[in-house]
Amino acid sequence: MPDASVRVLFLDLDGTLTDGVIGFSRDGDFRNFFVRDGLALEWARDLGVLPVVISGRMSLSGQARMHDLKLEHYLGVRNKVVVAEKVLAREGVGWEEAAMIGDDLPDVPLMKRVGWPIAVADAVPELLPFAKTVTVARAGAGAVREAVETILKRNGTWAKVLARYEVS
Amino acid sequence: MPDASVRVLFLDLDGTLTDGVIGFSRDGDFRNFFVRDGLALEWARDLGVLPVVISGRMSLSGQARMHDLKLEHYLGVRNKVVVAEKVLAREGVGWEEAAMIGDDLPDVPLMKRVGWPIAVADAVPELLPFAKTVTVARAGAGAVREAVETILKRNGTWAKVLARYEVS
Amino acid sequence: MPDASVRVLFLDLDGTLTDGVIGFSRDGDFRNFFVRDGLALEWARDLGVLPVVISGRMSLSGQARMHDLKLEHYLGVRNKVVVAEKVLAREGVGWEEAAMIGDDLPDVPLMKRVGWPIAVADAVPELLPFAKTVTVARAGAGAVREAVETILKRNGTWAKVLARYEVS
Amino acid sequence: MPDASVRVLFLDLDGTLTDGVIGFSRDGDFRNFFVRDGLALEWARDLGVLPVVISGRMSLSGQARMHDLKLEHYLGVRNKVVVAEKVLAREGVGWEEAAMIGDDLPDVPLMKRVGWPIAVADAVPELLPFAKTVTVARAGAGAVREAVETILKRNGTWAKVLARYEVS
Repeated sequence: MPDASVRVLFLDLDGTLTDGVIGFSRDGDFRNFFVRDGLALEWARDLGVLPVVISGRMSLSGQARMHDLKLEHYLGVRNKVVVAEKVLAREGVGWEEAAMIGDDLPDVPLMKRVGWPIAVADAVPELLPFAKTVTVARAGAGAVREAVETILKRNGTWAKVLARYEVS
Repeated sequence: MPDASVRVLFLDLDGTLTDGVIGFSRDGDFRNFFVRDGLALEWARDLGVLPVVISGRMSLSGQARMHDLKLEHYLGVRNKVVVAEKVLAREGVGWEEAAMIGDDLPDVPLMKRVGWPIAVADAVPELLPFAKTVTVARAGAGAVREAVETILKRNGTWAKVLARYEVS
Repeated sequence: MPDASVRVLFLDLDGTLTDGVIGFSRDGDFRNFFVRDGLALEWARDLGVLPVVISGRMSLSGQARMHDLKLEHYLGVRNKVVVAEKVLAREGVGWEEAAMIGDDLPDVPLMKRVGWPIAVADAVPELLPFAKTVTVARAGAGAVREAVETILKRNGTWAKVLARYEVS
Repeated sequence: MPDASVRVLFLDLDGTLTDGVIGFSRDGDFRNFFVRDGLALEWARDLGVLPVVISGRMSLSGQARMHDLKLEHYLGVRNKVVVAEKVLAREGVGWEEAAMIGDDLPDVPLMKRVGWPIAVADAVPELLPFAKTVTVARAGAGAVREAVETILKRNGTWAKVLARYEVS
């Protein structure tokens, strides 16, 4: 785990928030998200970790999920680093207080810069040398939930989630 | 197994009646249900176990499945316990005659109150200490079918299902 | 394998021709079929084995696939045995020349009557005592393809399929 | 690996670019593609390997994905070999400079002719004797990505992909 608390969590979309499937009907695309990932992102935001989705691919189905979760998102992005820099400047947050979770080569430039780069379990092998943490869960099946839990534990706020549901 | 017969079965929706996937197209959400779960809920109702679905999340696709199965359902619920109490009062059933099947933290408050709390095989680990039974089958792939079978066997009515299909 | 050649193949739909998932959007249901199953059913028909789908559940998505494959089908059927008897009488085929592939309790009455009852790999365990063959492949992932291959080999017509594709 | 560099890559669609599922709603068909496969095909084209999809089955959902990726494609093809011959003649490329990736019997005639026939991990067993390479990844889950990587490494252009993403 990194030295600093996490204040911003950057997320890739396809293959990180989804299982990597891009479905098509004649009417357009669809994507598979995971209920527990979305719930965890709501906890993160409530507890001081801002989730920001940055994707290289424009997608109407991705947009629909982003609106459903009211997530800050940038789709169809050419240069993920430039977008991330603007978010960090606006929030007054340094790279060392940012985490990033991704699965494929286009995520490397951002992972090289954040304080806590995280790879999903089924990331491409070329990504692993750049990750400080690799989730046990696969993308679209709990990887983001697991990453958020790990971050909230590091930040010392996970107990608040458990208390909310009468677990502790 | 609990001491009392089961007369009401509360069910979570996402991650319990589904595999946890919330799909999106530009036109909205979709969810994956399992044919054998639905069939089992029809048996349960015929044999004196009322299934009642309580979900924290509003969902048009969930609603469509609920209507398909003609299931009593409450979606977008803030406090699952309050809803369950009203159902039990109306049915004249005590907590000890109720079962509940769930998969994630928001299900804990209800699981702590029913006589027979059941977790799906792929429930989050924090849920397991609150469950008396954990299914072998995963959610959206037979967990609810398995729970209903176990309940009907406990209630002594499973043989009626087998007889209906010339199995015994 | 049975003594007689197979001339009619009865098939269940949900959990046999599909993986058992019944998806829902707000606009209705959808189902997952498998490309290799459909191709095999086209071979079967060309080579003298008539496929007939009999399902207890009405389904617009199932109907769409049936039309896609131009399959004889009966959906929303209360008594599968009665429907099968009419098909056999029309075709002049006896029960001993019929096969049936299924996955769940409602398939038992038909499986008890045909000459060659087949269960998919992921059938419910109560079905297995009634099956003469259990496929290695799971439903919606090649079970029907495997059953058709086995039947065509029994009938002595599988070599014609291989020759069509320059395999032998 | 073959002796010649690869200049054209023929691809089957169902069961190769997808997981073999053909979904249906009442409004038509849908198919599951994989984000990393599509990205790899974009790299291939940029680096001198022309991807050409040839499928025996017409499909509106397949067409939608082809347009999304701007891929040359022929759907509803009776004779895959004739189509491939025309493409090769137009490109001035010989069979020995062509690769083909497929999963089922209808792919055999083309696999017998190309210099580098590739089977997906979950191809039917009858296909394997005709393949020089079998991918580790399953269709619709990275098989095409893996095949493209292998081809680009053979062609000596894979390092350009890594450099693009600051990996090396």
